[in-house]
Amino acid sequence: MTVPLAKYIFLRLRSLGVEQVLGVPGDYSMPMLDYIYEVDGLQYVGTCNELNGIYAADGLARSKRIPAVFSSTYGVGELCAINGLAGANSEDVPIIHLVGTTSRVYQENHYVCHHAPPQIKGYLPNDHAMYEQSSRPYCVAAEALWDLSTATKQIDHVIAESIKWNKPAILWVPFDMVGLPVDEEDLKRPLNTAIDVSPLTDEVVDAIYNALDKAKTVALLSDMYAERFNLQSYLHKVLDLTKAWGFTTLLGKSSIDESHPQFVGCYNGHLCLEAVWKNVEGADFVFNVGPNITDSNSGGYSREIKDEKLIMINKQNAKVFGKLYEDVNFVHVLERLIAKLESGFTPKSAEKPVAEFSDVELKGPLHQIMMPKLLSEAVQEDGFLIAETGTSQFFAMDVKLKKGAKFFTQVFYESIGYALPAAAGVAMGCPGRRVTLLEGDGSAQVTAQEISTIVRKKLPVTIFLVNNDGYAIERSIWNEDLDYNDIAHWNWTKVMEAFGAKEGEVENYQIRTAEEFLDLVRNPSFQQSKKPQLVELFLERLDYPDHLYLQVKLVGERNKINFQKFSEKHDKLPSA
Amino acid sequence: MTVPLAKYIFLRLRSLGVEQVLGVPGDYSMPMLDYIYEVDGLQYVGTCNELNGIYAADGLARSKRIPAVFSSTYGVGELCAINGLAGANSEDVPIIHLVGTTSRVYQENHYVCHHAPPQIKGYLPNDHAMYEQSSRPYCVAAEALWDLSTATKQIDHVIAESIKWNKPAILWVPFDMVGLPVDEEDLKRPLNTAIDVSPLTDEVVDAIYNALDKAKTVALLSDMYAERFNLQSYLHKVLDLTKAWGFTTLLGKSSIDESHPQFVGCYNGHLCLEAVWKNVEGADFVFNVGPNITDSNSGGYSREIKDEKLIMINKQNAKVFGKLYEDVNFVHVLERLIAKLESGFTPKSAEKPVAEFSDVELKGPLHQIMMPKLLSEAVQEDGFLIAETGTSQFFAMDVKLKKGAKFFTQVFYESIGYALPAAAGVAMGCPGRRVTLLEGDGSAQVTAQEISTIVRKKLPVTIFLVNNDGYAIERSIWNEDLDYNDIAHWNWTKVMEAFGAKEGEVENYQIRTAEEFLDLVRNPSFQQSKKPQLVELFLERLDYPDHLYLQVKLVGERNKINFQKFSEKHDKLPSA
Ligand SMILES: Cc1ncc(C[n+]2csc(CCOP(=O)(O)OP(=O)(O)O)c2C)c(N)n1
Ligand SMILES: Cc1ncc(C[n+]2csc(CCOP(=O)(O)OP(=O)(O)O)c2C)c(N)n1
Repeated sequence: MTVPLAKYIFLRLRSLGVEQVLGVPGDYSMPMLDYIYEVDGLQYVGTCNELNGIYAADGLARSKRIPAVFSSTYGVGELCAINGLAGANSEDVPIIHLVGTTSRVYQENHYVCHHAPPQIKGYLPNDHAMYEQSSRPYCVAAEALWDLSTATKQIDHVIAESIKWNKPAILWVPFDMVGLPVDEEDLKRPLNTAIDVSPLTDEVVDAIYNALDKAKTVALLSDMYAERFNLQSYLHKVLDLTKAWGFTTLLGKSSIDESHPQFVGCYNGHLCLEAVWKNVEGADFVFNVGPNITDSNSGGYSREIKDEKLIMINKQNAKVFGKLYEDVNFVHVLERLIAKLESGFTPKSAEKPVAEFSDVELKGPLHQIMMPKLLSEAVQEDGFLIAETGTSQFFAMDVKLKKGAKFFTQVFYESIGYALPAAAGVAMGCPGRRVTLLEGDGSAQVTAQEISTIVRKKLPVTIFLVNNDGYAIERSIWNEDLDYNDIAHWNWTKVMEAFGAKEGEVENYQIRTAEEFLDLVRNPSFQQSKKPQLVELFLERLDYPDHLYLQVKLVGERNKINFQKFSEKHDKLPSA
Repeated sequence: MTVPLAKYIFLRLRSLGVEQVLGVPGDYSMPMLDYIYEVDGLQYVGTCNELNGIYAADGLARSKRIPAVFSSTYGVGELCAINGLAGANSEDVPIIHLVGTTSRVYQENHYVCHHAPPQIKGYLPNDHAMYEQSSRPYCVAAEALWDLSTATKQIDHVIAESIKWNKPAILWVPFDMVGLPVDEEDLKRPLNTAIDVSPLTDEVVDAIYNALDKAKTVALLSDMYAERFNLQSYLHKVLDLTKAWGFTTLLGKSSIDESHPQFVGCYNGHLCLEAVWKNVEGADFVFNVGPNITDSNSGGYSREIKDEKLIMINKQNAKVFGKLYEDVNFVHVLERLIAKLESGFTPKSAEKPVAEFSDVELKGPLHQIMMPKLLSEAVQEDGFLIAETGTSQFFAMDVKLKKGAKFFTQVFYESIGYALPAAAGVAMGCPGRRVTLLEGDGSAQVTAQEISTIVRKKLPVTIFLVNNDGYAIERSIWNEDLDYNDIAHWNWTKVMEAFGAKEGEVENYQIRTAEEFLDLVRNPSFQQSKKPQLVELFLERLDYPDHLYLQVKLVGERNKINFQKFSEKHDKLPSA
């Protein structure tokens, strides 16, 4: 039996649990999209534009923990989405990008058609594959279909690599090929997603075991890759078996459930609660799972954990007391470590350190310093908290999440506007769970139209819109006065209506004080609402979270010295 | 005397007439942007996001006819703007993209910092230059600064190439370099923007002269590159001297002023007014300036002009009765041709053909077929008309422009959402002239937030928002029923208020009939208004312009045959 090529793609994806294909259609992609409607349980979800669409796919993949599928049209759509691919690559999120391209006839004959690149010099043939160069650097696999006889293998490869490495991958599908028959049997071919087990795995396992055994106090520090590779059940097992203290970073937040009795708090170099960093760095042994030591994930590189008490395991390497083990995979390590612990290990139990956020009074006008406590009340059990790039990330760190609540923020790639569509994607991926979004006014303007998808799809998203009159984080980093950090003043509580919300379909609020905030989020009707909610929070223009302020100072001072040194060494200055 | 590097950049740009730097700031770019404020007559203009910003820059460059300057921050901002670069490349628009990048210290040491690419395998060094690959294919020049001693040359090169070829170019500026001193004298070095004169130029000139001399009827057909290289004064000279009839294509529309007594109409293969295509193709000699023969610019390749009566001149080649002349430049040809004509030429004067749009009654509910006539009343003298990708382009073709009115549409690159921010850019570039925008509801949702810039900057833009309930052009091309062509229903007349417009600052209208339309646009207070205007036009869902409908049929049928043939030749089908 045969099956049309595009249907093969969608059947394959459906069999992995995929339920949505996001995107924006185009004439080169519609013929492919038609086959979505032939696959049971698969649905097309349009977004306002491609960048928002791929951000939503990113959120969906993060929440559903399978690859999200995003489709676009040749050139124009594909290029609009690149920043989403690059973000997914940096932050390890599996997205499969399907691009409907020009037909093979057009490609081979270098047609000058809409979206295609121009001819060179006006007469030399153009190259329809030119756009591929732009996306390739961010994709773990990239295949352009052309030869029907290899097509299903190429499709499977793209999907398998995306799953295996939690990375974006891309497939270019010429629109004349979508209806051509391929062998249905190929769907039974297993996808090759296994990672080879390194022979060095046991050496790493033993080292960890011994370190756990020796240490009186152990900090299990879970970071970004642990979150992305969904290692929570392993980590909880390790906590149970060892009685270690649990910490996460900002990029790893919620990879250990924050209601877990051994969970202490969010570690961010020296820029976090003192009880947190002192207890991480002061532990006898730090078992660091999935680290990604970026500036904003380590308090501006203020993380100080000595090699002699640190073992790091990661997706493609381990580092044991400073010694690198290439190609060791953390899942393999954890599986064997747990087996070993289960076959007999006596945990030392040290009393859990208490890390409470500073004792700020929740009264009067809203201030950044109140936000962790306030938000801790707002995020629901089993809910999601998503923080946009900006000041929100810095107060999100100390928000205490209830049982089952998940958190993420793109604090490595840091592209503003990402979080809003991502929140919509999260809600699509996990129906019935409320999604709380912390969104800056500047960032919100980047991708604002996707609020209309939240309204149209009636998604239970609560947008806390932090109105602090512009790009506050940028003011804190560089310049408080120059107008490049100013933005237009929007009437935020009218936005959902403009984007199509009808009377009673959505809720809008404006909050100026801590009391108002608590009244609202403690109100059962607010809590139990199934509607989209937009809560505009008024904060002061130059009010920054402490962690942010300190990081800016730290990094700024170090940069100054380093730049000077570099310049003295490299630059021949012109005579003045 | 020395001057800080970034100030050098902005002084150089200012000396070319640049008045605005558009963009979105970031921590890697703010130190560069600071120097804008040190240059008299230069202003920073923020947009809601990078894609919109570069589209606005594109519009600004088109209207002002000098390179527009757009700035972004490393990685995240840069990648959001790529589709704008690619569009500018396809459509020949000069944009200089300044990217503030990570410092040289960070680059050299492969810092894992925000926005930077991830490490490979988690331990191999990352490559901060990785993102450059994505933009390079669309730039005529691309320079990454590093070595202070070559910096001003690199800067000048990027600017000069952009001017010379009307193309986008990109400059990556490490943020530790912006304050380093460079030699102020370098600003006096002339920019090398001249195009070499080909020795074949005169041969082409003579051929044109002779053809003009011999022919009884001459069609001067002006296309995209004539428009982009601003050849109008040459073309008008040729018309005056030869009494030829003037035609443009859609991509070249307004490159001959439509009030010119010899101007006939807009040629689009066989999909335009019959009197137009018959008189182009039936002329004894067709003098085609700056052609770009794309599908949508030639009535789906239905253009039929025989080689034996066709001479084409272009920016980098000429084609004389089928014979190619490489590297001949059309400006050189026109200058010499005009000199030759001026020194003695006797024009034959043939009566100008009349090409009137079909005699539709302007009564009752709005229909696509009425739009050319209606819009012809709406666009002002010396105004701009901009048509978004979609059905608007197809009715824009036959709109009659008044004296001095300029038109453009991105009908080659065809990226939806482009036109709205571009219209804002046009208005910034040419203050005091009203900009009329034809915008589809689907496209508008792509970049809607930039309406807020129109509001904030009080730009005299009239948005005709064609509300036909979704992606009509896509329905016409492929599928009228499937929901991938549906969009959310917005309350368009509330959008400007949501985006910050205060009472009385803007005008909103809803128009359902031809009579209402005419009443509105003939009203002096509407005409003389200086405010942003949004006019929602209600059209039927499945109402398509004829030219569009016919093109879809033509191309669709041909594709079907060609795809079949191609597949028979190349594909080995699996046994069913
Ligand atoms: C796509 C993109 N463009 C620009 C930046 C630079 N940038 C980082 S944060 C920020 C401002 C965010 O402002 P807002 O959302 O209002 O948050 P606030 O800090 O005020 O809470 C900007 C412009 C970026 N990170 N990503
Ligand atoms: C960035 C981008 N994405 C997708 C497309 C495919 N596309 C072309 S026209 C169009 C629909 C335009 O709809 P609308 O603006 O409502 O105009 P209408 O045809 O209805 O007048 C789409 C989705 C494109 N050209 N560019």
